[in-house]
Amino acid sequence: MKINLINPNTCQGMTDKIAISAHSVALPNTMIMASSPTNGPESIESAFDETIAAAALLDLIQQGEEQGVDAHIIACFGDPALDAAREIATKPVIGIAGAAFQLASLVSYRFGVVTTMTRTLPASEHLLQRYGYQHLCSGVRATDIAVLDLESIDLDTYQALKGECLRAINEDGAEAIVLGCAGMSDLADELSKQLEVPVIDGVVAAVKLAESLHQLKLTTSKQGQYAKPLPKAFYGQFKHWSQ
Amino acid sequence: MKINLINPNTCQGMTDKIAISAHSVALPNTMIMASSPTNGPESIESAFDETIAAAALLDLIQQGEEQGVDAHIIACFGDPALDAAREIATKPVIGIAGAAFQLASLVSYRFGVVTTMTRTLPASEHLLQRYGYQHLCSGVRATDIAVLDLESIDLDTYQALKGECLRAINEDGAEAIVLGCAGMSDLADELSKQLEVPVIDGVVAAVKLAESLHQLKLTTSKQGQYAKPLPKAFYGQFKHWSQ
Amino acid sequence: MKINLINPNTCQGMTDKIAISAHSVALPNTMIMASSPTNGPESIESAFDETIAAAALLDLIQQGEEQGVDAHIIACFGDPALDAAREIATKPVIGIAGAAFQLASLVSYRFGVVTTMTRTLPASEHLLQRYGYQHLCSGVRATDIAVLDLESIDLDTYQALKGECLRAINEDGAEAIVLGCAGMSDLADELSKQLEVPVIDGVVAAVKLAESLHQLKLTTSKQGQYAKPLPKAFYGQFKHWSQ
Amino acid sequence: MKINLINPNTCQGMTDKIAISAHSVALPNTMIMASSPTNGPESIESAFDETIAAAALLDLIQQGEEQGVDAHIIACFGDPALDAAREIATKPVIGIAGAAFQLASLVSYRFGVVTTMTRTLPASEHLLQRYGYQHLCSGVRATDIAVLDLESIDLDTYQALKGECLRAINEDGAEAIVLGCAGMSDLADELSKQLEVPVIDGVVAAVKLAESLHQLKLTTSKQGQYAKPLPKAFYGQFKHWSQ
Amino acid sequence: MKINLINPNTCQGMTDKIAISAHSVALPNTMIMASSPTNGPESIESAFDETIAAAALLDLIQQGEEQGVDAHIIACFGDPALDAAREIATKPVIGIAGAAFQLASLVSYRFGVVTTMTRTLPASEHLLQRYGYQHLCSGVRATDIAVLDLESIDLDTYQALKGECLRAINEDGAEAIVLGCAGMSDLADELSKQLEVPVIDGVVAAVKLAESLHQLKLTTSKQGQYAKPLPKAFYGQFKHWSQ
Amino acid sequence: MKINLINPNTCQGMTDKIAISAHSVALPNTMIMASSPTNGPESIESAFDETIAAAALLDLIQQGEEQGVDAHIIACFGDPALDAAREIATKPVIGIAGAAFQLASLVSYRFGVVTTMTRTLPASEHLLQRYGYQHLCSGVRATDIAVLDLESIDLDTYQALKGECLRAINEDGAEAIVLGCAGMSDLADELSKQLEVPVIDGVVAAVKLAESLHQLKLTTSKQGQYAKPLPKAFYGQFKHWSQ
Repeated sequence: MKINLINPNTCQGMTDKIAISAHSVALPNTMIMASSPTNGPESIESAFDETIAAAALLDLIQQGEEQGVDAHIIACFGDPALDAAREIATKPVIGIAGAAFQLASLVSYRFGVVTTMTRTLPASEHLLQRYGYQHLCSGVRATDIAVLDLESIDLDTYQALKGECLRAINEDGAEAIVLGCAGMSDLADELSKQLEVPVIDGVVAAVKLAESLHQLKLTTSKQGQYAKPLPKAFYGQFKHWSQ
Repeated sequence: MKINLINPNTCQGMTDKIAISAHSVALPNTMIMASSPTNGPESIESAFDETIAAAALLDLIQQGEEQGVDAHIIACFGDPALDAAREIATKPVIGIAGAAFQLASLVSYRFGVVTTMTRTLPASEHLLQRYGYQHLCSGVRATDIAVLDLESIDLDTYQALKGECLRAINEDGAEAIVLGCAGMSDLADELSKQLEVPVIDGVVAAVKLAESLHQLKLTTSKQGQYAKPLPKAFYGQFKHWSQ
Repeated sequence: MKINLINPNTCQGMTDKIAISAHSVALPNTMIMASSPTNGPESIESAFDETIAAAALLDLIQQGEEQGVDAHIIACFGDPALDAAREIATKPVIGIAGAAFQLASLVSYRFGVVTTMTRTLPASEHLLQRYGYQHLCSGVRATDIAVLDLESIDLDTYQALKGECLRAINEDGAEAIVLGCAGMSDLADELSKQLEVPVIDGVVAAVKLAESLHQLKLTTSKQGQYAKPLPKAFYGQFKHWSQ
Repeated sequence: MKINLINPNTCQGMTDKIAISAHSVALPNTMIMASSPTNGPESIESAFDETIAAAALLDLIQQGEEQGVDAHIIACFGDPALDAAREIATKPVIGIAGAAFQLASLVSYRFGVVTTMTRTLPASEHLLQRYGYQHLCSGVRATDIAVLDLESIDLDTYQALKGECLRAINEDGAEAIVLGCAGMSDLADELSKQLEVPVIDGVVAAVKLAESLHQLKLTTSKQGQYAKPLPKAFYGQFKHWSQ
Repeated sequence: MKINLINPNTCQGMTDKIAISAHSVALPNTMIMASSPTNGPESIESAFDETIAAAALLDLIQQGEEQGVDAHIIACFGDPALDAAREIATKPVIGIAGAAFQLASLVSYRFGVVTTMTRTLPASEHLLQRYGYQHLCSGVRATDIAVLDLESIDLDTYQALKGECLRAINEDGAEAIVLGCAGMSDLADELSKQLEVPVIDGVVAAVKLAESLHQLKLTTSKQGQYAKPLPKAFYGQFKHWSQ
Repeated sequence: MKINLINPNTCQGMTDKIAISAHSVALPNTMIMASSPTNGPESIESAFDETIAAAALLDLIQQGEEQGVDAHIIACFGDPALDAAREIATKPVIGIAGAAFQLASLVSYRFGVVTTMTRTLPASEHLLQRYGYQHLCSGVRATDIAVLDLESIDLDTYQALKGECLRAINEDGAEAIVLGCAGMSDLADELSKQLEVPVIDGVVAAVKLAESLHQLKLTTSKQGQYAKPLPKAFYGQFKHWSQ
């Protein structure tokens, strides 16, 4: 199968990193096609960034559909544009936050989320509510590490991240940790060894769920909320969406 | 004061209509500046449409700020891009759905929402939850009237809308009606007369709330969630947002 | 328009104070008629006080109706007797807590409430739940300043109040402050300057909402919950309510 | 023990009726002292009626305390003035709605409530929420039988009540019925025989709970919310509450 | 009446202790029949222990039915097997956690729970949610006292328990204390005297509720969820349940 | 990998059926070991059946651990004994209801559940609440098909099942269907073709999730709620659990 792995941030470093993570867990016959939009912010750290990136990433969904991919993954912890993507795609679309919550809930009673900037906390809380995992989450903690600083992580950054994970475990009662940014994908194994609890990266979780849906021949229902949008005129920068 | 009244649909007919509604209730010294984006869908009737329109309308927020407006109104019942707009604006930003829920709750115990397409029902339900009005809403009903058909309403369309309002009152126990589309703005008075319950249009509600905030010298808190986004690089179609 | 501004506490000092606050923000053609009941407790600081005051303030609602007012404001943060008042009045009735929550939610993502006595915390929490603003509130904090001590505020009292506001901002993440007593009405501007976040006083918020409803010709729905009570016999001290 | 059984409606017929019900289940050494206020509405069927009755019934709580009763029961399904009564009383105060919900939840998975007027439905729903029984209630149904018509019930009234109980069982899935008015107290046994499900009357439920608390030497905590109100001045009709 | 008081732990010491507590509050004509299963764990301190004990205790329910008891009490704070027991019994079944929550809510606005092992906290939280008392609970605190150590309590254990109760009162705002283990039953009176708030033991609470239901002739509804299970084959250790 | 697939019903027919379903979707190197307990009910259709089966199935979890399996699946839609199993196992334990909800939420906005007996509806609702999927479920519908009748399904049974699925889609707005019994496992493909929406069987969903966790080297956290139970004495039928 072919998986369309989209990094909605435009930064290439993170795209490379998540491609490696995804490859490392993919089944032999799963092809990972990683890309990021040519339009939009270099990193997503506010509702403003996310609103712009959401519109921009839909082009990559459409492109993936035209290339015949079997599943799409939106590899930003805010799961931006998920509903819109499910409307325009015929193949399943998975967000990494939702994927991480699902697997975390299978291996713990309460999981903690450790994410980047303090100001993204409400976004994480909103996702927990949307997916229904609020009562299974011991809390969301911010490290105030900038997304771009995750492209090449130094020891201080790693220690800061690990410290917040420890506080989630010891103070909040987290029994597993969900990493709140695709850019932390390469740290899951090391952190899990040191923390002695499961550490869940949404990128690899989403790859496994995409493969699962594909093998079960399940794709997005086109009855109801995710039916294809009615064709209509779009203008200006978005006129390529006109039908 | 100057109010930046944004119709996130690109259709001019609706922009004209809401400008008239807004003028009709504005105080003498309130100037209404109505506009719609040059980019984006002609109407918003799906999550896909809304995701595109959200990114496009932010240009109008920025433009309004530069023109020295005193408040922004997002005149689409999904309140698209509200958080993003509040981040980049220094002046208050009001969505018409939230505005309508607020005034409806002041004049009824339970209000009903009557909106356009069935597939937008989840969006309305999400807004009720976001703002905390779910328990004060007797239900959301769709008319399956297309947004563009609201630009010039014929008798059949009016009867269909009125019929759904009556079902909201008689079957759901609605004591007031919130109109679920800016394009219904001109019908509120007539409907209220015929239905004998308050009928709330979000456009005029938002104008009054914008004036209220202005007179109380209240604007968006820049501490926390709505602080200005960090400057960063944007690429391609969105590079004008780079700082 | 004429606004019937009711201080449900019998203390004249607070009535004078809220009259001044209301006047300071009212439109030129808005007449503020401030009064307090001749019956009831001098201040409201318990469920017992509030239960007595609720029955007593209804006489002022009825009196306002007879004097042809256009709106009623119940200026006590517990919004006592709100449902009962909406039943007997033909004109809109607004409570200052609900009014403050509405405007606070327009200018912040999460607001904090700073109120008087610790034992009134459950009342505030109940109001947040009733109106649906619990998830938008970062917490309610008590100052343990007695209501009557707010009639003439000394520096110590002011510092105590400001200190609790700062804790709401710094410890709870409040982005705006709602003042939890009508008696704090005159402090909103000074506090906002010093705290650098919006500070919302329910009295002036309610005045603006009353004007808004009046200008939009919206009043309480008489279908359903707020229909006029059936005429019946009342006895003893309340026999004047017999019909 | 002595139980202060208060009918907050001023109608003597209902007071007599609930006294008989209470006597019929009381232990041999339990003395039932039934009374109704000399002030207030003859029946409680709106928020307005309830607000007036709440203030009036507190005199009977105080009087009971002075007479050395061991428990107070507020025998109106809205449980009016419950928090206020718990503040001023040293002995436990029980509302009949809360009492009925408790026993109903012990003998069924989901119970239905059958009450009087349609407009009191929100009051019942509020009580379910306050006590936390919403998820254990299959629904609240109104019979639109006036409270005073329950004083002497004819066959038509009985059939209407029974019919609504049957709909609660067959359409809503109620496994037990809670009677939503003290005036239905004498019908519980007959209804239970005919409906073949438990039928719970709050008056007798409250008597048993009052005896239970008394035998366990449990009374209202005076730490926190139900501490005695601070002494203060009351004016006019309520000046007897001054301390 | 005869009450079947079941200690689902197999330890005899606790069975003796709760028999004494139950006797001490029972009415003269109430006979307490206390027992524990011959199968199962000596104490219940994990979901595993509880799952085993739940199956084992059903034999005692069946035995009680055959002996003609009038009510069953499951005297373990997890209320194990409650739904199953209500299905197979014709007489009411009461769990001590649910019983304690009910009486605690009658004498306080917010109660705290003080229980045994930290790992049982989720079980307590689940019970609060099941019964709907989450919003009335100020928090659940663990003492990490093992259940068997409660059989004969030394001074250190008592001080640890009392200390946690004090923290519940002073830090969490508990106005009453619910004891979270049947093995604490004999400490309620002493703790209440020292803490000066109501202390509720579920065992005696359940006895009073069982007597109340019996006197009101109320028993489990056999319509719906608690109908008798369909007869079917059981195998192996459980073949005695075959019908 | 080796998967311990447990049918908690003792009926062999269902064990055979789910083994075939599981095999049909398993990866080439996944070995399915299907079994059912030697103790317990032949089918699970009440809380009583489930309580007995829960204790009985734990022996199979322990046996699987000793045989070195890599994951356990509890193949009964009530997910019985899930917490207990996670405590005693070192390898992940997955319930088929939770698994089905997860995959259903990836391919639809709202899914419906179609299950067996009416009296199991509360169990399904409890699971939706436990896992947090209530708001994503359009409703649970019962077919009143007995579990054993699913062992060899005739046309009438199939039509009854399909009819209820259609009602879920057309009346409740279900966009996908979750099959509420392991015994329906072999019908998912045919139903999906006829209904034209995704139909999710929990057995195959759980197999894919078990493989996913295995490939990601994730297993149950042993910190907190799912730590190994303390060793203690067990008596009688359960004395083999003593340590």
